Amino acid sequence: MKLKNLHDLFNHELQDLSSAEEQIIKALPKMIEKATNQELQDGLSNHLEKTKEHAEIVKQVATECGFSAKGDECKGMKGLLQEGEDIISLSGGDDVRDAAIIIAAQRVEHYEISGYGSAIAHARELDLPDVISLLEGILEQEYEADTILSEIALSNVNEEATEAERMYL
Amino acid sequence: MKLKNLHDLFNHELQDLSSAEEQIIKALPKMIEKATNQELQDGLSNHLEKTKEHAEIVKQVATECGFSAKGDECKGMKGLLQEGEDIISLSGGDDVRDAAIIIAAQRVEHYEISGYGSAIAHARELDLPDVISLLEGILEQEYEADTILSEIALSNVNEEATEAERMYL
Repeated sequence: MKLKNLHDLFNHELQDLSSAEEQIIKALPKMIEKATNQELQDGLSNHLEKTKEHAEIVKQVATECGFSAKGDECKGMKGLLQEGEDIISLSGGDDVRDAAIIIAAQRVEHYEISGYGSAIAHARELDLPDVISLLEGILEQEYEADTILSEIALSNVNEEATEAERMYL
Repeated sequence: MKLKNLHDLFNHELQDLSSAEEQIIKALPKMIEKATNQELQDGLSNHLEKTKEHAEIVKQVATECGFSAKGDECKGMKGLLQEGEDIISLSGGDDVRDAAIIIAAQRVEHYEISGYGSAIAHARELDLPDVISLLEGILEQEYEADTILSEIALSNVNEEATEAERMYL
């Protein structure tokens, strides 16, 4: 598919975000299972439900724009999730693993913040007010998820991982 | 390498960021060559110089912490750059290609914002004030680069890509 104008590029972005969301839906349950901190488990579980809603909204936006949401696999998200799986599996000890899960999850969130940010800018240029509103709703929740992960890291996980550090050093 | 405490995890993060920066140094010249908007070319060229400095700083931080900066290839950045290459090569027409370059570059910036953000949080827990200061300097420049890309997109590129849209539709 050749992208010859902003309309085509926006179509491609929605397909990419749709693939990214579907990949996250598959990956998050494994992260939740490996998390031990209760706040982290709850935060990720809550975000999994939001992610399922986001995937539906992206499909709805694509349909409304006359696109198919089905495109190539999002290679960026594939790499991020593979990297996340690696760092989590390398991490021994519950607290260090929780810190590694937060690292991986925040990289995923930032991919989405960037992806929805670009898509919203393009929806503005294409003058699609209903689409902008739907995508802005998702972007706001991605920012929230990132903030919640930072708060969990600061309040609990890093400190416990440092305790583990003192025990091991 | 098993990551058994926050110290090990921080070591791994620095190796990951070092690999990410080296991959960006290789990829950016191709993006600059394909960009046609002058502001975008200048912005990316300026960021390439900053990226070379960041790569050196990460190595310096690793050395100061007693780590080797050389680790596994950063899979997240590899996926992001591959995805960027794909979307840029699919984009026909200078203005659409410039918009695609901005999409790709902002995903890269957000990876780094997330990566340095996590590393700084862990450097705080490990009580490494000099390291925090160096990494915060980089993080600030990554945020700046992302903002500059958004400004270029809003002021020039998207509008021109929409003009291209009107011509083609």
